[in-house]
Amino acid sequence: MSLTRIYKELKRDLNDIEKGIEEAVASDHPTLHQAGYELIKAGGKRIRPILVLLSSRYGKKDDPAVKKAAITLELIHTASLVHDDVIDNAELRRGKPTVKAKWNNRTAMYAGDYLFAKAIDIMADIQNPYANQVVAKAMREMSIGEIEQIKDQFNYRQNLRQYLLRIKRKTALLMAISCELGAIASGASRSIGRKLYYFGYFMGMSYQITDDILDFVGTEKQLGKPAGSDLKQGNITLPTLMAFRHSDIKAAVKRTLDMDNPSAQDFDGVINLIKQSDAIEVSQEISTQYLKKAYNILNDLPDHSSTRSFREIADYIGIRKY
Amino acid sequence: MSLTRIYKELKRDLNDIEKGIEEAVASDHPTLHQAGYELIKAGGKRIRPILVLLSSRYGKKDDPAVKKAAITLELIHTASLVHDDVIDNAELRRGKPTVKAKWNNRTAMYAGDYLFAKAIDIMADIQNPYANQVVAKAMREMSIGEIEQIKDQFNYRQNLRQYLLRIKRKTALLMAISCELGAIASGASRSIGRKLYYFGYFMGMSYQITDDILDFVGTEKQLGKPAGSDLKQGNITLPTLMAFRHSDIKAAVKRTLDMDNPSAQDFDGVINLIKQSDAIEVSQEISTQYLKKAYNILNDLPDHSSTRSFREIADYIGIRKY
Repeated sequence: MSLTRIYKELKRDLNDIEKGIEEAVASDHPTLHQAGYELIKAGGKRIRPILVLLSSRYGKKDDPAVKKAAITLELIHTASLVHDDVIDNAELRRGKPTVKAKWNNRTAMYAGDYLFAKAIDIMADIQNPYANQVVAKAMREMSIGEIEQIKDQFNYRQNLRQYLLRIKRKTALLMAISCELGAIASGASRSIGRKLYYFGYFMGMSYQITDDILDFVGTEKQLGKPAGSDLKQGNITLPTLMAFRHSDIKAAVKRTLDMDNPSAQDFDGVINLIKQSDAIEVSQEISTQYLKKAYNILNDLPDHSSTRSFREIADYIGIRKY
Repeated sequence: MSLTRIYKELKRDLNDIEKGIEEAVASDHPTLHQAGYELIKAGGKRIRPILVLLSSRYGKKDDPAVKKAAITLELIHTASLVHDDVIDNAELRRGKPTVKAKWNNRTAMYAGDYLFAKAIDIMADIQNPYANQVVAKAMREMSIGEIEQIKDQFNYRQNLRQYLLRIKRKTALLMAISCELGAIASGASRSIGRKLYYFGYFMGMSYQITDDILDFVGTEKQLGKPAGSDLKQGNITLPTLMAFRHSDIKAAVKRTLDMDNPSAQDFDGVINLIKQSDAIEVSQEISTQYLKKAYNILNDLPDHSSTRSFREIADYIGIRKY
């Protein structure tokens, strides 16, 4: 099970979008040009453009607004990763040095600003005020999510609700609007647009929870960064939160994170405690619950090639290993 | 000479805009709420809203789009100051601790992102695609300007052209589009809009050069931050650049800035060298040249109460001391 069939089906449109993204980051400015180019080349799965394209098939075909929406959303995603690397002090992203590591935090901040502005610029071309508002509101929520993430680092008292709201803002919201905007840009009905929004939202929640699980159980090669990175940075994600139900594990994690200079062994110790508890399984169960809600939405959508493709994507998220 | 008459004339509209700005930053999020509130309360001269309001008078009166444009531009300005303080490692802005000093760099980055997104959100309400594009392009240029500023810190080989392009992106562009958007939002002719753009641009260039001069000749009380801050941070502005025409001063500045830990006396020494040279006078002359171009545009605009108000603003910029 993989996304190969979908990539093949969308190949021509995805190639156009890829060119559009490259053009968008091809700034006159040498640092930005290089940073943008490397970011885009480092790739990623282009999940947001795929969601936009599939959603657009419920409306009329080949509206140029659809590709613009796809480029916009991928640029926003990339910009948020650049700013995210500033917050995480990350040195590696997708196995390559981050903008922040290669240049510096301030350059990364402004490279992100540039990409955000480019994204809005392309979106404004669509001349659809509702679509522009949807994008602006999502960007706003994403920035609040990031501030919450800073606040919640090393916060041992956070609850499940806080975690879920954080990953909604961090990931699920952009996937939700990717689905909705594809429908809007292609003139599909508002009702289909809203359903697709919820499909994207539930799927995005499951996707991010899986990401947070993989950060514990994946290998460095699969992840493109060392395993356990989240916990090492003080980011308390679902597996840690679920392990906290066991007071001895909570105490051990707290003790390690509060050390002045915890060693790699110290970290491996608590990461193994979390992995050996029921936390991974419980987290997977919560992820599965979201995925089920996503499937329920699909059952409510018309029988359509895109509905079938979305089902494949949901299947893929249910089993992905990296 | 001051702007008192204009503030009085625009008082009711400015109050509405002030409320709009307060509402815009009143987020549910406590950190953002407090940071936004303090930023807005710290004030500033609200020059961009004034430019929008005056420009709007060339079109039809009381279009709600005008106030939305004014709020948008002030929010973009505020957001850029927040991000700017990250880059400058600034501890004080307008005599108050910066967001960055009070919280941290990452919170400042996301508070800025939030304000940018809010600005775009309000702008999207206007439902004018051209206006949205103008704003997005300006934000893009502003982020490039900031990257240039990082690159040009401690760069002794930069030329006048680089400096002028940098202050265009940093200041003049936002003033230019403030004037243009006021006209667009009120339905004034495109030709008046373009003229106002250039008025705002020339005036903005003069304004920023004056700012850069005041950083040398103003007192800490007038500036709300220690005098000579630009040079201490390695920002080479027009007075320094003009002083560099004297090779002995250039060598002294370079020697001081390249020291590991230059003392306050070391800095006072080179700042005095620059002040005692012809650099301030030459900088003032360049500022005056831009102001003359701004007056020339005004002579080309219809005889109108706003044309007279713009002339007062230009007069004020010609003589302002803080």
